[in-house]
Amino acid sequence: MAEVVRTKQEICERVAAARAGGKAIGFVPTMGALHAGHRKLIERSVSENDFTVLSIFVNPTQFGPAEDFDRYPRHLEADVAAAGQAGADLVFAPTAEEMYAADHSTWIDEEKVSEGMCGARRPGHFRGVATVCAKFFNVVRPDRAYFGQKDYQQLRIIERMVRDLDIPVEIRPVETVRGGDGLAVSSRNDYLSPDERQASLAIWRALKQAAALVGGGERSTRAVSDAVRSEIVRDGRLRVEYIEIVDAQTLEPIVPLEGRMVIAVAVYCNHTRLIDNLVVECPKAD
Amino acid sequence: MAEVVRTKQEICERVAAARAGGKAIGFVPTMGALHAGHRKLIERSVSENDFTVLSIFVNPTQFGPAEDFDRYPRHLEADVAAAGQAGADLVFAPTAEEMYAADHSTWIDEEKVSEGMCGARRPGHFRGVATVCAKFFNVVRPDRAYFGQKDYQQLRIIERMVRDLDIPVEIRPVETVRGGDGLAVSSRNDYLSPDERQASLAIWRALKQAAALVGGGERSTRAVSDAVRSEIVRDGRLRVEYIEIVDAQTLEPIVPLEGRMVIAVAVYCNHTRLIDNLVVECPKAD
Repeated sequence: MAEVVRTKQEICERVAAARAGGKAIGFVPTMGALHAGHRKLIERSVSENDFTVLSIFVNPTQFGPAEDFDRYPRHLEADVAAAGQAGADLVFAPTAEEMYAADHSTWIDEEKVSEGMCGARRPGHFRGVATVCAKFFNVVRPDRAYFGQKDYQQLRIIERMVRDLDIPVEIRPVETVRGGDGLAVSSRNDYLSPDERQASLAIWRALKQAAALVGGGERSTRAVSDAVRSEIVRDGRLRVEYIEIVDAQTLEPIVPLEGRMVIAVAVYCNHTRLIDNLVVECPKAD
Repeated sequence: MAEVVRTKQEICERVAAARAGGKAIGFVPTMGALHAGHRKLIERSVSENDFTVLSIFVNPTQFGPAEDFDRYPRHLEADVAAAGQAGADLVFAPTAEEMYAADHSTWIDEEKVSEGMCGARRPGHFRGVATVCAKFFNVVRPDRAYFGQKDYQQLRIIERMVRDLDIPVEIRPVETVRGGDGLAVSSRNDYLSPDERQASLAIWRALKQAAALVGGGERSTRAVSDAVRSEIVRDGRLRVEYIEIVDAQTLEPIVPLEGRMVIAVAVYCNHTRLIDNLVVECPKAD
């Protein structure tokens, strides 16, 4: 079991002591419900730092009013055990009251990278994410922080924020972890029935087919996007929220396809929202 | 002469070296055009810290399109000399390109304390101020930062931001410095002709009269506000932008008057915009 601290002051002091001992600090921010993806983030941090802090905080400000804040999975004890097994030194699990003053009124908005994809469909989501991450960075003051590529837009927004606000932390992306069936590991997969999970495998199939299309020379954004859509909706159990093919760094749309791009999708399976993406490299035309 | 550094990396390294030597770091952010008010900030920092950094940066993002960014006074050499005389150890004078990436897209918004007063009249102003201050705090990483009470709303917004984002810096307010004639010292006083300066003295007279009114038992916000207005407009050369009487901490309007309040005004003398304020304590009614 990793040790758990509950207050900003305590985490700040504990990390300061580690830092004073010459230790490099790694940080893995999570909303708990730890899975193999988080485990990989922790292991990466442990391999690159001397002291790893994991935060567990279901951040209310990044959920919309109609979203799943209330039913988001919470099981702190299991999470703390899993964090310790993966090598985390300390778990920071604050309450919402510890993190936000009742009259909290300061927000961080990234306004470009967050324009499309999830940013367009979840108003206020990335404002909440950026704000809570900046707060965590200021409290923990890590040397490096670890983010999964599965939440691709989040990763790019955090990188942009860190650059724009000169936050002294290095953001380290970590590859998406998939189940044996290909489904990207996510805490929200807990919501899926076995049948729904089976249906959701079309997402990864569609992304791989799209990569093959681009690899085969297809340069039409529309054609690739249509192919992804038809694979996802084929058996009728998934509904597409968006399919976007965008520059892998700026997340701006690219037409026709060239350079390093990400094919990103958000899909509903009944009430469960799933996102996934695949980065594809496509040689520039001469 | 204080030494001048131009890049974020260099200031970061120089301050890190001072910090490693056990020195407490004080920070005074300015737009240059140093005057007695800035001198007081520097002296306060020098008295409370071992190493004082002064920034000189006319921050483009806090000026509106119709404001005085282009004609804002700039005289770096004299400023560096003045900073050194007042005891600053290091001057950080970056270019706009050093401070902002061409595709900068991350902003900090304080949304409560900034609602009224200058925030209501200068859209985007405090967004620019908050963002650049957060950047400076992240680059310099001072123990304490010094802000004049003359820019009262700015001070309260920065305090709120630091609290809300958990920025590890202590904000230290410093009293307004006034000329022998009572006019609050400001870089924008440079714009005033002798005649305009004479006219502008009505601001401080009006604030003192208001304090006397409150001290004498007046509890009507409207009555005090009207008295301030009539003194300011009396000789016809000043135009009131706002007169607000608000809670000294939250900057929310207070009716009737009780507790700790600030009487804050913005006034135009021809094209020159002047602000001033006075904090007044008024015992709570039984």
